[in-house]
Amino acid sequence: MPDRSTQLYTQDAILDILRDSVSQGDRAGLTELFESSQPVDIASAANSLEDEELQSLVDLLPSSSIESLVSDADEELAMRIAGMLDDRSLLIVVGRMRDDDAADVLGSLPRERVSRLLSEMREADRTVLLSLLQYPDESAGSIMTTSFLALRQDRTVSDCLALIRAKGAGTEQIQIVYVLGMHGELAGCVDLRTILSSSRNTTLATIMERHVISVDPYDDQEEAATLVARYDLAVLPVVSGGQLLGVITVDDIIDVIIEEYDEDLLRLAGANAEERLDTPFLRSVRMRLPWLLVNLVTAFLASAVVRMFEGTIAQAVALSAIMTIVSGMGGNAGSQTMAIVVRAIAREDVPKAGVLAGLAKEAITGAIDGLAVGLVTGVVVAAVYGNLYLSLVVLAAMVGNMVIAGTSGLLVPVVLKACHQDPAVSSSIFVTTATDVLGFLLFLGLAQLFLPLIV
Amino acid sequence: MPDRSTQLYTQDAILDILRDSVSQGDRAGLTELFESSQPVDIASAANSLEDEELQSLVDLLPSSSIESLVSDADEELAMRIAGMLDDRSLLIVVGRMRDDDAADVLGSLPRERVSRLLSEMREADRTVLLSLLQYPDESAGSIMTTSFLALRQDRTVSDCLALIRAKGAGTEQIQIVYVLGMHGELAGCVDLRTILSSSRNTTLATIMERHVISVDPYDDQEEAATLVARYDLAVLPVVSGGQLLGVITVDDIIDVIIEEYDEDLLRLAGANAEERLDTPFLRSVRMRLPWLLVNLVTAFLASAVVRMFEGTIAQAVALSAIMTIVSGMGGNAGSQTMAIVVRAIAREDVPKAGVLAGLAKEAITGAIDGLAVGLVTGVVVAAVYGNLYLSLVVLAAMVGNMVIAGTSGLLVPVVLKACHQDPAVSSSIFVTTATDVLGFLLFLGLAQLFLPLIV
Repeated sequence: MPDRSTQLYTQDAILDILRDSVSQGDRAGLTELFESSQPVDIASAANSLEDEELQSLVDLLPSSSIESLVSDADEELAMRIAGMLDDRSLLIVVGRMRDDDAADVLGSLPRERVSRLLSEMREADRTVLLSLLQYPDESAGSIMTTSFLALRQDRTVSDCLALIRAKGAGTEQIQIVYVLGMHGELAGCVDLRTILSSSRNTTLATIMERHVISVDPYDDQEEAATLVARYDLAVLPVVSGGQLLGVITVDDIIDVIIEEYDEDLLRLAGANAEERLDTPFLRSVRMRLPWLLVNLVTAFLASAVVRMFEGTIAQAVALSAIMTIVSGMGGNAGSQTMAIVVRAIAREDVPKAGVLAGLAKEAITGAIDGLAVGLVTGVVVAAVYGNLYLSLVVLAAMVGNMVIAGTSGLLVPVVLKACHQDPAVSSSIFVTTATDVLGFLLFLGLAQLFLPLIV
Repeated sequence: MPDRSTQLYTQDAILDILRDSVSQGDRAGLTELFESSQPVDIASAANSLEDEELQSLVDLLPSSSIESLVSDADEELAMRIAGMLDDRSLLIVVGRMRDDDAADVLGSLPRERVSRLLSEMREADRTVLLSLLQYPDESAGSIMTTSFLALRQDRTVSDCLALIRAKGAGTEQIQIVYVLGMHGELAGCVDLRTILSSSRNTTLATIMERHVISVDPYDDQEEAATLVARYDLAVLPVVSGGQLLGVITVDDIIDVIIEEYDEDLLRLAGANAEERLDTPFLRSVRMRLPWLLVNLVTAFLASAVVRMFEGTIAQAVALSAIMTIVSGMGGNAGSQTMAIVVRAIAREDVPKAGVLAGLAKEAITGAIDGLAVGLVTGVVVAAVYGNLYLSLVVLAAMVGNMVIAGTSGLLVPVVLKACHQDPAVSSSIFVTTATDVLGFLLFLGLAQLFLPLIV
C-alpha cells in the first residue's frame, strides 16, 4: 500500500510478525502490531494464515483485537475466525462490534448458532440485531447502522451538544444530527456546523433542514449509493413509514459502489463476481463453466449457419478465411456500444427520449464504422484474392453487421433492463449471437448470391 | 431518481420549469425552483437546454444560483455557462465557489482567459487557485481543497471550538481538525468527537492521533481513492515535505471511484471513457474506429492462419463451420480470466507469490473447462458429421485453446501492468489474438494431421 506516512509494516512484514508471534506465543509482539498497524492491513495479512496458525492467533489475542480484526475482515476470514471461537467468546466479540458489522457476521453464520447467540444476548442488543437481520442481502437496510444522533425538534442546541458529548464517541458519524417531530417521525436534520455556530438556546426546529433525502430499508443498496454519489451526502437516513430506522454511512456506500462496479465489470465478461485470483480451481471451474456452456449454444448456432453454406464454401474456400473477419469485427463493435449502454443504465444516465434516437445514432455510427473497416478489409481482400466482387461482398456484409452490432448493442441491455434483468449479466450473449449468426448469414448469403462472380 | 421523500420535481418537470421561466422571463419561478430542488438535478436538466435558452437562463439567474449550477454541472455544461458570462460576472461566480470547484472550472477554460481572470482576482484567491492549478489532471492535488481546519498543537480544545465556530461554516468538513507542529508541519489530527468530549483546556497535542494517513499532491487520484476506501477515511490530507497543503473529501473520492471504474469497464470493451449515449455520431465514430482498426489487424492475422489451411478446408469443408466454435469459446474463456485479473490489478489485490501459481491454476482450470466444453462439442460434432476422429480433433483443440485462453488472460494484463500500461486498455486485443490465431492453428493443424481419418 502506498501509505508512506504512517504504515510501519508492509503486508508481508505483518504476515511475518503474525507468524513469529504465533509460533512463539508472543502476546506483547501482537499488541505492538495492533497498536502500530491498521486493522484492515492485519486482516489482509491474516487471510494468508493456515487454519492452525489462525487458531493460535485467535487464542492469543484479547477480544478487543479480535473485534477489530473481524470488523475489518472479509466475509471468508470473519467466518473462519467465528468458527474458531466458542459461543461465549464470540458473544463478547460481537458485543463490541458496530451493530452493522455484528449483523454482517451473524448473517453469515449457521442459523442454529445465530439463534443460540441471539438468545444469550441482552434484550436491547438482540432487538437491534434482529431488526437489522430481517433485511435482505444488498438492501439498504442490510448496510445501515442504528447508531445515530436524534433529538426532538423542541430541544435546543445546548441539548444537542450535551447529547453529542454523551453519545458521540460511540456514534459512527456526528456531522448530521436528526430532528424528530412530536410523534417520533423524522422531521429534518441539522448539520453540526450549524449547531456549533448557533446560540445555545436555539431550538432545533428553527435551524433544521426540512428536505431530507432518504431511502427505504428495502430499497436496493445500489439506489442508496446512487443518492449519496449524486447529492454528495455525508450520511443517508433509512426511513420507513416516516420513522428513522438507521443511517448508512459513506464508508459503507464506498464499499457498495466498489462491489457493484466489480460485479458489472466481471458479469460483462461472463465471470462470477465472487471469483478472485486465488479461488481454488475447482470452484473457478464451477463458476466459469455454466457461462461457457451458455456461450456454446451461441457458437453452435453460428456454426449451423456456416454449415448451411458448406456448398458455397466448397466452391470458394476463401470465404472461410474471410467470414471470421466479418463476424469478429461485428462482435468488437457490439461490445463497444454495449459497454457504453450498460454503464449508462448503471448510472441511471439514459436519455429519456433516447431509445429511438439512440438506435438511429447507433445505426449511422455502425454504418460509418462498417464502411471504414469494410473498405480496408475490401482492399486487403482484393490484394490477396484478386477478386473485386469478393471485396464488395465483404464491404456490404461489414456495413450490415456493424449496423446490427450497434443497434443490438443498444437494444439488448435496454430490453433486459426493462424486463428487470441485470443487463451486465446476459447482454453479451445476445449481442454476440446477433453479430455472429447474422454476420455469417449476411456475408455467406451475399457470397452465395454472387457466387458466379466470386469463384 | 428514487428520491421519494424530498424531490418535488422530476428531471422532466425541472426542464419544463426552466424552459417556461426562461421564455417568460420569470425570475420568481426560477428562485422557487432553486429553493425547492437540488442544484445537481437542475444542472442535469439544464444539460438539455439549447444555447439560446441557456443564455437567457444565465441572464436571468443571480450569481448565487449560477454558482451552485456551475459547481454541480458536468464539465461540458460548466464550460458552456462560463462561455456565456463576461469576465466580471464569471469572476463573481468563481469567487463564490469552493476552491476545488473553482480550479476545475478555470482548468478547462482557454489559457488567455484564465490569466486574465487570475490577474483580476484578489491576491489571496489567486495564490490558492494557482497552487491548485499546478497539479496535473487526475492527481491527488487536482481534487483537493485548501479549506480545512488546522491549529497548532499547543492550542486547546476551547481554541478549537472557537475556530470551528468562526470558520466551520465555510469549511467543507469539520469532522477532522488537523494539528500542526511548531514549524507548521502536520503533526496529527483530532476527531471532532474527541474534541467535544474533552475538557476545554486540554491541549490538542495530548489528544491528537499521531498516525495520519496522507497522500502526496502528485500521487494519482486513484491512489487517494484506494486509501480512503481501504481505511474508511472521512477525509484524506494532502501533504508535501511535511506541510499540509489541502484535504480531499469523500464526495470527491466517490466521484474518482466512479470515474475510474467507468474507465476500466469501457476500456475493457474497447470503448472510450469519454463517450456517452448522447455523444454525436461523428465523435462516436472518431472514438470507436481506432480501436476497431487495431482489432482488424488481429482479425487479419487469424484470417491468414485460416488461409494457410485452405487446402485442408477444401478437402473437409465441415472444418470451416467447426473452427469458429473453437476460436470463439477460447475468446469467451479468455475474457473471463482477463476480467478477474484486471479487477484484481485495479484493486491492488494481486497475490504476490501469485503469477506462477496463478498460471498453473489458469492452465488447470482451462484444461477442465476445455474438456467439458470440448466433450459437448465433440458429441454434437459426432452426431452432425458422424465422424469420431473429427470429434477428437475438436476436443483436443478445445482443451488446448482454453489453456491458452486462461494463461494469456492472466499473463497479458500482468505484463502490461508491469510495463506501466493500463491493463484495461489493451489486454483484450492481445488475448483475442492469442485465442483466435492459436485456436485456428491448433484446430486446423490437428485436422490437417489427421485429414485422411476425417475426410
